[in-house]
This record gives sequence, structure tokens and C-alpha cells, in this order.
Amino acid sequence: MLNAILTHLQTNGDQALDRLKQFLRIPSISTDPAYADDCRAAADWVAGQLTQCGLEAAVEPTDGHPAVVARTAETIPGAPHVLFYGHYDVQPPDPLEQWQSPPFEPTVRDGRIYARGACDDKGQVMTFIEALRAWHEVGQRIPVNLTVLIEGDEEGGSIAMERFVEKNAERLQADIALVSDTAMWDPNTPSIIYGLRGLLYMEVKLHGPGRDLHSGVYGGTVANPATELARVLGELFDENHAVTIDGFYDAVRPLSDAERAAWKKLPFDETQYAESIGLNALHGEAGFETLERRWARPSCDVNGLYGGYGGEGAKTVIPAMAGAKVSFRLVADQDPRKIADAFVQWFEQRTPPGCRWEFINHGTADPVCVANDSPWVARAAEALRQGTGCEPVCVREGATIPVIGTFKHVLGLDTLLVGFGLNDDNLHAPNEKFDLRCFEMGCRTHAVLLDLLGTK
Amino acid sequence: MLNAILTHLQTNGDQALDRLKQFLRIPSISTDPAYADDCRAAADWVAGQLTQCGLEAAVEPTDGHPAVVARTAETIPGAPHVLFYGHYDVQPPDPLEQWQSPPFEPTVRDGRIYARGACDDKGQVMTFIEALRAWHEVGQRIPVNLTVLIEGDEEGGSIAMERFVEKNAERLQADIALVSDTAMWDPNTPSIIYGLRGLLYMEVKLHGPGRDLHSGVYGGTVANPATELARVLGELFDENHAVTIDGFYDAVRPLSDAERAAWKKLPFDETQYAESIGLNALHGEAGFETLERRWARPSCDVNGLYGGYGGEGAKTVIPAMAGAKVSFRLVADQDPRKIADAFVQWFEQRTPPGCRWEFINHGTADPVCVANDSPWVARAAEALRQGTGCEPVCVREGATIPVIGTFKHVLGLDTLLVGFGLNDDNLHAPNEKFDLRCFEMGCRTHAVLLDLLGTK
Repeated sequence: MLNAILTHLQTNGDQALDRLKQFLRIPSISTDPAYADDCRAAADWVAGQLTQCGLEAAVEPTDGHPAVVARTAETIPGAPHVLFYGHYDVQPPDPLEQWQSPPFEPTVRDGRIYARGACDDKGQVMTFIEALRAWHEVGQRIPVNLTVLIEGDEEGGSIAMERFVEKNAERLQADIALVSDTAMWDPNTPSIIYGLRGLLYMEVKLHGPGRDLHSGVYGGTVANPATELARVLGELFDENHAVTIDGFYDAVRPLSDAERAAWKKLPFDETQYAESIGLNALHGEAGFETLERRWARPSCDVNGLYGGYGGEGAKTVIPAMAGAKVSFRLVADQDPRKIADAFVQWFEQRTPPGCRWEFINHGTADPVCVANDSPWVARAAEALRQGTGCEPVCVREGATIPVIGTFKHVLGLDTLLVGFGLNDDNLHAPNEKFDLRCFEMGCRTHAVLLDLLGTK
Repeated sequence: MLNAILTHLQTNGDQALDRLKQFLRIPSISTDPAYADDCRAAADWVAGQLTQCGLEAAVEPTDGHPAVVARTAETIPGAPHVLFYGHYDVQPPDPLEQWQSPPFEPTVRDGRIYARGACDDKGQVMTFIEALRAWHEVGQRIPVNLTVLIEGDEEGGSIAMERFVEKNAERLQADIALVSDTAMWDPNTPSIIYGLRGLLYMEVKLHGPGRDLHSGVYGGTVANPATELARVLGELFDENHAVTIDGFYDAVRPLSDAERAAWKKLPFDETQYAESIGLNALHGEAGFETLERRWARPSCDVNGLYGGYGGEGAKTVIPAMAGAKVSFRLVADQDPRKIADAFVQWFEQRTPPGCRWEFINHGTADPVCVANDSPWVARAAEALRQGTGCEPVCVREGATIPVIGTFKHVLGLDTLLVGFGLNDDNLHAPNEKFDLRCFEMGCRTHAVLLDLLGTK
């Protein structure tokens, strides 16, 4: 029976690729209000797919973009209840001029599909939906009680989804959550993720003079917001590249000896890691190994700088305002809300003369770190062995899936994070891609995992 | 005779305003290559005006945008030779959305004409050309030997004009240079400027990873160019807001006791100065008065910051590159070329791991500071008394007119800086304007000054 499903996946690969292309053509950029209709279109499209798989699917309103909620039609007594989560929204595609093919015209080159969202997360969502479709099309009942939840605000921090989960906690009860929005360790080593970093994404603007000023006439007599913003941002780090916000590290859970030992055994080559991103040297908080800095230490990044003249040539201006987008990746047990308050206070203590700060909180997400020796993890590992033919590793991840923390805190759910991306997939960057081999491995693994979860 | 000229100016004011509007409609933005044709058009237009005033005018090529060179047709033996200099190019108009009327559709509101270049420098150039026209149209020979030089690269630093002056040093010989590109002390106090700050305008880019990276996946393990650029820019200043580049202050000429005493007598109200630019506090190098910081101390400003995501909402990116435009106002006897070298060296000493700097020099200008008790200054002061009905002051200026240093070093010329702008004219900012009263006072003063210079 499982063989029939896997064969069906194999013989219907071209149609699956066509469906993925349809999905990728929808520019569902959630953080830019201009694309609200496209987000709605993406939700409708996903609901249609799930209906075709035999589920009862609906597009439901949230405080943000709509969410898709689907369920298996009948309850299977004694079978576990699985909550599959993914997101249909994507990051903005800029800088556009660096794309080799347009971000919303999916293009296959060398066995990879290039498009914004190809990997994050449309392609990975489709690995699960294609598995459901295969079970359905060969005439088999999906062997678990299943809720599928696909949201449209993940790239903006899932704030609306957090509220949606809180409001719908009863309906969303399950035994385990399942998510495909992460990467494999390497092309031949799938991974199960048991820890994710959280997020705090702030924007800070420094307002100075009431208007832009001529830097010759006024230079040297007023606080220049661009100059002062840079100076204050510079103070965010000490000489060890540690964050200087009061209490920032207080709640950081130290790495256990067992984890440190396990990570040392991972086939991680620092030189190769640096070279893969065009660097001849790495940089970060002093006193920690690269993997620890990436997975178990919080980080702080300026994601955007703006203010004054950025065009061609010269303009001698003291800008009235300058701003920065600053985000933090947080680790268990840091509280993003406390860090946000400390961030604001830290800047307020450094207000340049005559200036004032403006803050925008673009989103928070709790870090998560769960047990890595549960029966759920064992079944995911076996599904990966059968679905990919490779031995998986059990690791953490530096990135954030905001809703995972919400599943834990609101629904009491642990999450199986089984993803099929690769580290060179250019997430959030130009030329995002998804390997078609990974797409196939994902479809197969999910087909097997449904079987393993269903047989208890 | 002079009365006839002044009367002619008064009765022909509407036509003069129409001509100014024609000039202001040409978007002659010199620092953006997209506007090269408009710069050429502005040069042609100016040459046409000067021809109408009876001068022999030509548009001549330079290494940058073309320059207009015009001369009086016949030599007057014994009369002084005056070189009038101005510029037809303007600053970029961004941010466009802050203009109340479009920057290249000159609009009169409340006795002021609003447009990019209204004051800097098209409006002020026209005060001189209208004076010439009045002399010519009442049938009077212009009483000095006159060369008019109007360039198109001032806003980019006059690099091409410096070379043009060097190449044409013979033809440009004169006894005194005359420039209207500065401001009055206040609406009822005209000024003669005897000192200008110089300029060094650098752009610095920090290149890091080979592509934009996801800040979750990579955050904490690589030097982020936006973060590191801010940090390094912050180090440009010490706790006294003094510039930390080695040797930066070595050549600064100390303020004389006489100047300090004279400046103390000026009707300068710091509170009013701050309020006029929307500030409740000033800021600058510790240990110096505001006027000294503005005129006699060098300054450093970040004129632009860019890198990463600056759009709506959030994007969790580590940008591959971030950049800043950084300019210095320099005072006698600082050498902008030496400061440029020190700037590059200073950044190179602070290269973050895995990163590299890229530098662009957008222009340099020598500071100037000349005698303020010459016969030329006395005649300019008398022309201002008669042209404006107000008593002038003799002061310095914080801004830069790059070519003035070149006139001094290449032609051996001192310059009379007699300008008619006001401090609220929004130079280099949205809603640049020129008071029509100032326009009229400028035309009258130049008509009188030509007479006074001609009578020796």
C-alpha cells in the first residue's frame, strides 16, 4: 500500500511540479500592504489544493492575512491527531536586479526551481500536500486525524497567527505538530530540529532637526541623526561583540555538556561554511564555537539602515531623520517582550541633544528547545530514512518559526521540525531556489511519516 | 545714470521674475547622470541671457558639464577686471514627497519663489545678470572689464571646474572675483563673507558576505556589513564629539582674538538659531562656541546611510553590503587631500573580519580665509548700503564654494562674497525658496557695485 503511494508520487512528479509553479507565481508578500490581494489568492489556492486531497478546507479571517484551516473528514478513533503547519506568504524579493530570473516566474535550471518562496515555505508546504494527494489519489484514507494550518503572516512575525491560535485553541488541539520549514544538514543528511531561536524585530528612527539641513551651513552645530544613529548603534556591541543591553544574556540557558559533545561530532567544516557565503573569515561573540553562536547564543543584526542621501554622487545634507531595522535572534529562555523593553530603554538612555527616538515593534517570537529523544522524533527519523535513503541528524536551528513557540505555550504541543531545504537555498535573498531532489524526498518522507504516525 | 538703471530694474521686475522662472524650470541636477541634457540646456539658457546683456558668451566643454564663459565686448583701459562666478547646477530634489509644490515648477507664495535652485544658485546668479541687463538696456556701457563664469558641477564639488580654471588660467586673469552664493546675516543685515569652509566628500562601502544572508540562519556567525559600518562610523567621534582621525586637527588655524571679539558682537541668538531649525538643543565639538564651531572649526557629517532593507515592515536579512556618504567641512589651513588619505587609512585600520572597504571620493575643496579690510570689501559694503538700505556685517560662512579656493591658488584672486540668501531658504532640502525682496536687493546691489568698481 505504501509502495503504491510512493510509486504514485514518482509517476506524477511533473504534475506536482506544475502545481508548485502555480503556487510560486502568486506574489504573496505579506509585509507589504500592496500585496494583500495576492495573499488572499494564495490562501484560496492552498484551500483548493487541500479540498482536492479530500480534506474539508476553509479560508478563515485573522487579524492579518487569512489563514487556511483544513481537516480530515472523519475521525479515526485511537489514531493520533497531527497538526501540520506551514505558511504561504513570502519575503519581499528586493533587490530585484540581482535575480537571474524574475522572482515570481518560477524557472527550473539544473534541477532546481528558482522563485521567491521556492523553499521558504511554499515548496516545503507542497511536499506535505503532495503526500496527502498521493494517499488520496491511490484511494487510501489518510491514517491520522489531521488538521492543516497554513498562515500568511509568518514573514512578518506571525503576530496575527499567534492571536488566531489563542482564539482557536480548542479547535487546534492535537498530539503533535509537524512543520517543514527548515533545512537538511547537507544534501545527503536530513535533519530533525529540536531547538529554534526566537525573534525580536525592532525599527528605530532618530528624529533631529525639523527639516533636512545644509551640512555646510549647519555642520558642527547640531546633532546629525544619521551620524548619531550610527554612533549609538555602534554601542550595541562591546569589544567581544557581545550585546550591551542590560540583562540581555540573563535568561540564556547554557549549552549542556551532552549537546556540546554531540555537536562536536557533526560533520561541520568552518572553512567550507565561510566559503559557501563568500567569506574568508567568520565573526561573532568571543568565546563560543560557531555552531554554538548559531544555535545556542542570541545574536543581534542591523537588517537595514536608511537616512539622508543614498543616490548617485553627493548631497551635502544633514537629514532630519535616520532609521535602522534591528533584529535579535533569541534563545531559550529569553523573553522577547522583556528584551524589547530593555531595547527601548537602552536607546532612550542615549538620546542625542535635541533629538528623539521613535520605535516600531515589527514582531516577537519565543525561542523553543524541546526533548530530542521522544517516540515522535524516532518515527520522524525512520520516515526520513525511508523517504530519503539517508541517516538523519538531530540538531538545533538558528532561524525562527514564530508560531512554534505559540504551539508550545498555548496548545502545549511539541513540534516535529522535518525540513528539506538546503543551506544554499538563498532564503530571504535574491535567487531563492529549491532542489527538485529535495522536493521529491520531502513528498516521499511525508507519505511515509503519515503511515508511521498512523500505525502508532 | 545709476538712478535710471535702478528705476529700470524696478519697472521691469515682472519680466525679471519670468526669466528666473524659466531658469528654475530646467532640472539641471549635476550629480545625477540622467540630467546631463538638462545641464547642457541650462548652460545654453545662461549664455543666451548674457548675450542679451551685450556680452560675448560661449558654452565651453569641461571634464564635467559645460561651463558658460562670457566677456564684455571691449576693454576699458584702466578699469578693474572683475570675474563674476556662479553655478547653474542644483542639488537633487529628494525627498520629493516633502515638497509643497514640485521642485521644478517654480511657484510664488507669500513673496517667495519656491523651486530647487531658487536661492542656490540660480536666483543669485540672476541678480547679477539682471543688473547687467539693466545697465545694457538703459544704454550704458558696463563700466568694468568683466568675465562671467557660470559652471555646472558645483553641487558635485567643482572638480571639473578646478581643472577648467587651471587650463584657462591665462584667460581668466582678473583683479577680483565676485560671487553671490551665500546668505545675508538676517533679512535686514547683508553680509560680506571673508572665510569659507572647505570640503571633503567621501563615500564608503563595506562589503561582507558574497550575497544577502538570512539573519536567523547566519546571525551571530558573520560580520554584518550594516552592523559593522554603524559601529565603525560611531568611532569617528570621541566623547567630546571631536573627530578621531589621526592628525585631523593638526593644520587648523586658531581663531584670532580680534575675530573672536568681533563675533561676540554679532546679534546671534542661539535659542532662535536652534528653534529656526526645529531643535531645542544644539550639539557639537565640546569647548567651542556655536559660531566658532560653524565657521572656524572643521565638522564631520554622515550625509547618507544605506544597506539592507529599508521598506515597509520587516525583512530579516544580513546585507552583503552597506554604505555611507561622509563629508567633512574643513577650515584653513587643512588640506582636503591629506584628510582623504587619512580617512581611508583610518577605515582600513578598522576592517571587520571577512569584509573589505570600497571608497569613492566625490570631491574636495580648499578652505579659504582672506583679509577683511581691503578696498574691495569697502566698495562691496557701500554697494550693499545703497542696494539694500541696510548696514552689512563682515563674517565667515560654514558652507563651501569649492572654486573660491581654486581662484586663490591658481589665479591668485581674492573673492568678494556678497550673497542674498536667507538662513531659512532650505538649501539642499525640500521647499527651497528665495525671497523676492532679496532678489530685488541683489539686483540693485550688483547694479550699484558695478558702478562703484568702475569708478575706482
